[in-house]
Amino acid sequence: MSGAMNFKNCGSVLVTGASRGLGLQIVDSLASGGFSPGKIIATTREPERAQKLQELAQKHPNIHIITLDVVNQESIEGSVEEVGQLVQQEGLNCLINNAGINVVADFHTVTAEMMIENFRTNAVAPLMITKAFLPLLKQAASRGGAGGTGSMGIQRAAVINMTSLLGSVELNWGERANNFKWYPYRTSKSALNMVSRCMAVDLEPNGILCMAIHPGWVRTDMGGSQAPLSPEESVSSVLSVIGGLTEKDNGSFLNFTGEVLPW
Amino acid sequence: MSGAMNFKNCGSVLVTGASRGLGLQIVDSLASGGFSPGKIIATTREPERAQKLQELAQKHPNIHIITLDVVNQESIEGSVEEVGQLVQQEGLNCLINNAGINVVADFHTVTAEMMIENFRTNAVAPLMITKAFLPLLKQAASRGGAGGTGSMGIQRAAVINMTSLLGSVELNWGERANNFKWYPYRTSKSALNMVSRCMAVDLEPNGILCMAIHPGWVRTDMGGSQAPLSPEESVSSVLSVIGGLTEKDNGSFLNFTGEVLPW
Repeated sequence: MSGAMNFKNCGSVLVTGASRGLGLQIVDSLASGGFSPGKIIATTREPERAQKLQELAQKHPNIHIITLDVVNQESIEGSVEEVGQLVQQEGLNCLINNAGINVVADFHTVTAEMMIENFRTNAVAPLMITKAFLPLLKQAASRGGAGGTGSMGIQRAAVINMTSLLGSVELNWGERANNFKWYPYRTSKSALNMVSRCMAVDLEPNGILCMAIHPGWVRTDMGGSQAPLSPEESVSSVLSVIGGLTEKDNGSFLNFTGEVLPW
Repeated sequence: MSGAMNFKNCGSVLVTGASRGLGLQIVDSLASGGFSPGKIIATTREPERAQKLQELAQKHPNIHIITLDVVNQESIEGSVEEVGQLVQQEGLNCLINNAGINVVADFHTVTAEMMIENFRTNAVAPLMITKAFLPLLKQAASRGGAGGTGSMGIQRAAVINMTSLLGSVELNWGERANNFKWYPYRTSKSALNMVSRCMAVDLEPNGILCMAIHPGWVRTDMGGSQAPLSPEESVSSVLSVIGGLTEKDNGSFLNFTGEVLPW
């Protein structure tokens, strides 16, 4: 039900943007799922303001809250140091680049700075975070995963980028295009998809899987109240898909239902 | 041969980044093609340093050189004013967003600022330029094109974005991915493809066509000396494709040979 059972062989998961929305739900579902990973590392820009996350961490001792401002290089490097001390020689098995923003603007209202702000958070930050966590991911990957089989997946090392269907250039046509004329958001997610695909090629020799997943349209602060999916439903499905990833999924763009999406 | 004959019904063309490389060749081919557009507007950041372009303009009185720094909003607005005075009530028929840079960096060397620099020039600038020139494009489109048929194409109004095969997320796999591990460039061109597709949807009601074209791998400063195509060969083919665009090509991503490319 929770989707978290697929994480039973995953020693550590890091989720960015965990103070609310999908990030918070991922932490909640992983912690409450019965097959909880050894360490759930939840990052947020201001832990002192993340009340719900703090409450979760009080209930589940395997949740570790770490400060991370995803667009600040110093903050990224500080978080790597903290996570390194937490996971020690086991490394980091699963990095979920979930933090994202939606700078809403259409053709007429969009500015250069809006485009860059959204790009910086949604596309550049996951790249810079993955670069910074590479030593910890490599460390986990080099251990060969559960049973030392050397096969790819979250039991070994994986980078998961939370992207969006709205980042699909091909699907941005007809009805779908007319509903969401969000230039900064759409563009940032297309860019993230390219970053994902580039990283999938570059990290594969290290045994680290990389892919992009669309969580569905979810009733969060970002998705709004009209969205068809609850955070629980989305995350249950997303965690099932992530938990089942193998070599063949490296470099893929998947829906929360597991189907392949067009770029 | 030159591909420019398809421009015989096009009153005015604007080409950004016209001081060298493909931009300069486009101006040259259009001016020398026998069926030259009424006005060829060549923009460059520093006209006084664009010697080859100046020489071309001395030979061909229909070439007009205008200063434009594509990442500077004030410069964009100044260029719109100048172009408006040039084209008057006829408006601008064809805007070719050609200016682009390649900030070369791989996974290990890339920085956030490199990603943003390339994104700003290659993806954001074409959007901001198209927004600024919209009144002039609309003016041309409202005249209905040659013969007043109202069909779409460069004889009426079109925005052409010079993109790259390297912006294709789908094709960034296998041999192609291993050859060009350029994170900033690839990402900026994927982002430009999304911008193109968004604009195709938004400009269509005004009768303005928008699409993205890959010019091939060309022996320019950017493409290097090992590229298989000369600038003349590439531009001849590109101008043929652009000249033949119709409604069905709105929102497309075409190779310089005219074939459809995957996003």
